[in-house]
Amino acid sequence: METIGRHVISELWNCNVDKLNDMEMIEKIFVDAALVAGAEVREVAFHKFAPQGVSGVVIISESHLTIHSFPEHGYASIDVYTCGDRIDPNVAADYIAKALDAEISEKMELPRGLGPVQIKKKQMTSI
Amino acid sequence: METIGRHVISELWNCNVDKLNDMEMIEKIFVDAALVAGAEVREVAFHKFAPQGVSGVVIISESHLTIHSFPEHGYASIDVYTCGDRIDPNVAADYIAKALDAEISEKMELPRGLGPVQIKKKQMTSI
Repeated sequence: METIGRHVISELWNCNVDKLNDMEMIEKIFVDAALVAGAEVREVAFHKFAPQGVSGVVIISESHLTIHSFPEHGYASIDVYTCGDRIDPNVAADYIAKALDAEISEKMELPRGLGPVQIKKKQMTSI
Repeated sequence: METIGRHVISELWNCNVDKLNDMEMIEKIFVDAALVAGAEVREVAFHKFAPQGVSGVVIISESHLTIHSFPEHGYASIDVYTCGDRIDPNVAADYIAKALDAEISEKMELPRGLGPVQIKKKQMTSI
C-alpha cells in the first residue's frame, strides 16, 4: 500500500450543542461520513465523558476519522486522514461539519507519508 | 474542559519491520506510551490488515494516539493529540519512536482548539 496520505484537520465552532453531547448520533455521523467519502469501515470506538463531551474514532481501510467534542464550548476537533488517492478526506470533513451544524469551520490539509528528507551525498569528481 | 490542545504528528521511517506487523506488540506500545505520558486510557481499538500493516487508536481522557503502519516501507504514521497542558504529547511520541526502533523521526506540533479567528470590529469614535 502507498504511504502517501492526506490529513485534514478541521476545527468546528458554534456547533449544535445537543449533537456534540449525543454519542450515538456522533457515531452514526462519523460512520456515514466515512461511507459517503467511499471509505471502508474497519473499527468503531467511541467514549462519552461525564459530565459532557464525546471522543471517538472510526478506523477505515484508508486510515481514520476522529472527533473530540466540547459541548460547553460548541467546539469539535476533527481529523480525517486518508491514505492513497482514491478517497478525498474533505468529503468526509465537510459532511461532518454540516451534520454538526458548525457555523465556523477552519480546515487545513497536511500531506503524510511522503518519505524521509534525504540528505544527498555530494558528488565527488576527480579533475 | 479546556479546548486548547497539542497535536504531534510523527512520521517514522526505517522502523523494525517485524514490530510494524505485530498488532499485539503495537497495542502494548501504544497503551504504555499513553501511560508513560501520564494519560488515562479510555478505549483501545486496533486492526490488522492482510497481507500486512496495522492501524489502531488509543482514546485517552486527553484525546488520542493513532498509528498506521506500513511494514513493507518500514514506515509508521503516528499522531499524538493531548488536550490541556498536563500531558506532553512528545513524551508519548518519543516513546513510540524508540519502541519501534525508528531510525528517522520527523515531528511537527500543531496547536488545536485555540478558538475561531475573530474579526475585530472597527472601533468607531465620534470626534
